[in-house]
Amino acid sequence: MKQLLGKDQIAALGIEGGWTAGLQDFVRFAELDALNHVNNVVYSTWFETLRVLYMRKIGLAYDGQADLATVVRSTTVEYLKPMYMNQEYIVLCRTVKLGRSSFVIDYSVVADGAVTATATTLMVATNLEATKSIPVPDAVRQVMIEQDGAAT
Amino acid sequence: MKQLLGKDQIAALGIEGGWTAGLQDFVRFAELDALNHVNNVVYSTWFETLRVLYMRKIGLAYDGQADLATVVRSTTVEYLKPMYMNQEYIVLCRTVKLGRSSFVIDYSVVADGAVTATATTLMVATNLEATKSIPVPDAVRQVMIEQDGAAT
Amino acid sequence: MKQLLGKDQIAALGIEGGWTAGLQDFVRFAELDALNHVNNVVYSTWFETLRVLYMRKIGLAYDGQADLATVVRSTTVEYLKPMYMNQEYIVLCRTVKLGRSSFVIDYSVVADGAVTATATTLMVATNLEATKSIPVPDAVRQVMIEQDGAAT
Amino acid sequence: MKQLLGKDQIAALGIEGGWTAGLQDFVRFAELDALNHVNNVVYSTWFETLRVLYMRKIGLAYDGQADLATVVRSTTVEYLKPMYMNQEYIVLCRTVKLGRSSFVIDYSVVADGAVTATATTLMVATNLEATKSIPVPDAVRQVMIEQDGAAT
Repeated sequence: MKQLLGKDQIAALGIEGGWTAGLQDFVRFAELDALNHVNNVVYSTWFETLRVLYMRKIGLAYDGQADLATVVRSTTVEYLKPMYMNQEYIVLCRTVKLGRSSFVIDYSVVADGAVTATATTLMVATNLEATKSIPVPDAVRQVMIEQDGAAT
Repeated sequence: MKQLLGKDQIAALGIEGGWTAGLQDFVRFAELDALNHVNNVVYSTWFETLRVLYMRKIGLAYDGQADLATVVRSTTVEYLKPMYMNQEYIVLCRTVKLGRSSFVIDYSVVADGAVTATATTLMVATNLEATKSIPVPDAVRQVMIEQDGAAT
Repeated sequence: MKQLLGKDQIAALGIEGGWTAGLQDFVRFAELDALNHVNNVVYSTWFETLRVLYMRKIGLAYDGQADLATVVRSTTVEYLKPMYMNQEYIVLCRTVKLGRSSFVIDYSVVADGAVTATATTLMVATNLEATKSIPVPDAVRQVMIEQDGAAT
Repeated sequence: MKQLLGKDQIAALGIEGGWTAGLQDFVRFAELDALNHVNNVVYSTWFETLRVLYMRKIGLAYDGQADLATVVRSTTVEYLKPMYMNQEYIVLCRTVKLGRSSFVIDYSVVADGAVTATATTLMVATNLEATKSIPVPDAVRQVMIEQDGAAT
């Protein structure tokens, strides 16, 4: 996806934190709630959109083309600043921790020079039926450690 | 919004039809349904996103900054081709017909050189409480007629 | 689904129109938009929810258990009255017209004794890959004609 | 809302945990994602729906009728079991911890006798503009402590 920004492109925007995947977008009318700001739940969809693109790029396809799937075991989101109609933002992620079959992805939303939300998800690599965990493939581990700086 | 394409930019992309507003985007995971293609309802959100930007640009604010609102009286969507994960598209619109306080906006989605969906909405300009229709302001009428080619 | 109301249950509620499937629900916070009423697009999701239950009940499974799928070719929605937080409503449908492989479903939303929206969708029965239309099965035709009063 | 179950109704269903608000519902087609189970993000909307009804009931209106609003500071969701089309469930909550202006609500989803997801949100009571925190009103504190058993 040409939309997916890489590590160097993100750094070139002056955004710190070693993020290795990013997506630029703006707030749409449908993402506002009755309080006229971005609904809390919408951030989780932004994180999902980015995560699916990021995982596909590093070799963890969502679509069952390999005998490998990933599931979200838990997610935590912190809401720091409200966001509004038409506001431009960048959503960012990187893998920060890596186990045998589990890994942790951190996220951030930056808008108008401020972090508006952060999040973290605990992911598990599984077989396609999601009935048992499987080891993260070596090629993926290498990207997570070398590119993302994931702790092992 | 820098994202909103104008008439000349759309024509420069080789897209016919005299569209005066457009937005380029790609299909996100959250827009797929259990059948693994873009859910029918999602197209209507794309049309809304574009319509809100377009109306704001031509002077019909959604956000109550003027004593003017717009409501959707009816909408028709035709689904021509399924769309898939990551597919890039452009959603387009223009006002095609104009009455005293009502107007008709047509829409199209173009992806990979084909029209995947078309739509039309009947809009009515109202006071902020949406309790009575009010005439479309003259400055807006002029844009709809001269730029969009709306029939009167 | 115990939630799906049948023809007699709907008539017993004093709702006219010969509707053969209905679902009672209430407006949730997430269905409101920044204007503090139910977003236009949300009605289409209500129609989809009911249609999937209705079609499954009369033998047109959504889930590929038979070699039969259905696609929406077009949909028209008319918005008659705004709806608000916590408002209780019933969404209704029935098949009103039947061709060889296509059929038309009409919908209505009734809240506080008034119709707040109506809709119609043109459906086509297809093979599972949705690459060609197939005839509506005889058992389904019979329900559409005898129960729903569909015109042929 | 007649839909909102209270403490005794929940206990009568044989559900343990001292939950004081619950909502029974079923999985709709629109809540499935391309993997054919309930999308992770959808659970957060279920929690929001219940939370808004619960807070309104105990005197924390969402709609600005009092000079009091609540904001979500953070949310954590744990996904324990996948959920599927038409599955019936009950979503539950209660306030478990109470500070001067902040409080913690816990949530659970129970389906077919098993807990499929749990969550917790840190809430803050604010003025209507959400520019400063304000103390939780005494009448609300009393309900949180006596009915919900919130720790102080």
